Amino acid sequence: MSEPTAKIPQPIRLVPLGALPAIGPGDDLAALLCRAAEQADVTFARGVLVVCQKIVSKAEGRLVELAEIEPSQRALQIAEQDGKDARHVEVILRESDRIVRHAHGVMICQTRHGFVCANAGVDLSNAPGPEVAVLLPEDCDASAENLRAALEASGCRDVAVIISDTFGRPWREGLVDVAIGCAGIGPMADVRGQRDWTGRDLQVTITATADQLAAAAGLLMVKNAGVPAVWIEGHLPDGEGHVRQTLRDPASDLFR
Amino acid sequence: MSEPTAKIPQPIRLVPLGALPAIGPGDDLAALLCRAAEQADVTFARGVLVVCQKIVSKAEGRLVELAEIEPSQRALQIAEQDGKDARHVEVILRESDRIVRHAHGVMICQTRHGFVCANAGVDLSNAPGPEVAVLLPEDCDASAENLRAALEASGCRDVAVIISDTFGRPWREGLVDVAIGCAGIGPMADVRGQRDWTGRDLQVTITATADQLAAAAGLLMVKNAGVPAVWIEGHLPDGEGHVRQTLRDPASDLFR
Repeated sequence: MSEPTAKIPQPIRLVPLGALPAIGPGDDLAALLCRAAEQADVTFARGVLVVCQKIVSKAEGRLVELAEIEPSQRALQIAEQDGKDARHVEVILRESDRIVRHAHGVMICQTRHGFVCANAGVDLSNAPGPEVAVLLPEDCDASAENLRAALEASGCRDVAVIISDTFGRPWREGLVDVAIGCAGIGPMADVRGQRDWTGRDLQVTITATADQLAAAAGLLMVKNAGVPAVWIEGHLPDGEGHVRQTLRDPASDLFR
Repeated sequence: MSEPTAKIPQPIRLVPLGALPAIGPGDDLAALLCRAAEQADVTFARGVLVVCQKIVSKAEGRLVELAEIEPSQRALQIAEQDGKDARHVEVILRESDRIVRHAHGVMICQTRHGFVCANAGVDLSNAPGPEVAVLLPEDCDASAENLRAALEASGCRDVAVIISDTFGRPWREGLVDVAIGCAGIGPMADVRGQRDWTGRDLQVTITATADQLAAAAGLLMVKNAGVPAVWIEGHLPDGEGHVRQTLRDPASDLFR
């Protein structure tokens, strides 16, 4: 039996950043996050910052007043069938490229980005008001890239940014946090071709690192505790890439 | 805008436990893990221990010598079609209740436990030899319960145990670690009915806590570094339950 080929990694520490005010359009997220880091006694250097989609969308003004939405015939039909607000359904349809499944009052949509999730990520909870829908960022990888650039401009070094959202999955109850955008880190770690303990080639082991980081941060993003960001120390940014690269080619997807 | 209703959680620390020998049938996993904890300078108290399926299966002797397997006609057909070892395919079929999808050389199976994953979790990598397949534990929740009882018997207190495995997902490339068994912790945290920042009811927010813990631990379970277990401090065991409760009822599953 051969020796393991990689070093045992360092411990990882996850620090919740709770000291953020309510975020609105145009807010300087990088500055607010840096201030929250100070209060949590951490320095943004050599680590991964996971930020929940909701505050990124709010800062980018990705908000829709439901009062201004005129529901289509299709939205009215679905809303009546599902017992939903037709204006909410209309916004979901506008954000969707395709309805993947619609049953039991659940709409699983493929968003314009290519994500497959409930309601195309259009959310009414934690919105600035009861009549406001929050949309996903227009380009989540670009949002991560912009936030990273702003952090670097304020002197942060070797910081990766992940934007996370909470998705359901087939076959299992419960939601998990996944990465919808990233910058400064490879979203997948490819260990194909490296050897395992026994010296046998690991044939197909591509880990969805960005999703694992998002899920880890999700442990601290307790919905009602006001933790919209988590700083991760010990997992160094490695590689480059974007979440859009992790979306499976429809041709090789068995569950379209 | 009302104040958040829950306290900001404490930071979480993830410590890799790398100092384990090769595990074989009958090994006392609890004792070996306690020794690894000592070497990593952690104490198993008030935290979550995530253990990868592979070492649990090996300790339980869930190993199959391929030389002893007589492939069925169906296994021979699939093996020829997919370019696989027919004896491996035969073991996969025996561990499956149902083939959910079979295309592009990929078998997505529903295991006897109800998990939906590639190859019914039957794995040839990190096996004790090139001609040995490692099966999932017979009852993963019971395995977690047994390990927890053994840890408690050696004096550990308030320790939850999660057994993790690495699964693929639809729509996204890359594997993530999920919980296949747990004990001493509720696999899902239900925050329905609690209020979000704006005072609005959170209607459907059930987090798959055990899966998020497994994914977090997965960041350190680098396949070729020999880290089969991770100790998580700061996330206290809360609730009781088992992973089998998180498997979605086929009647409400849109992706059977």
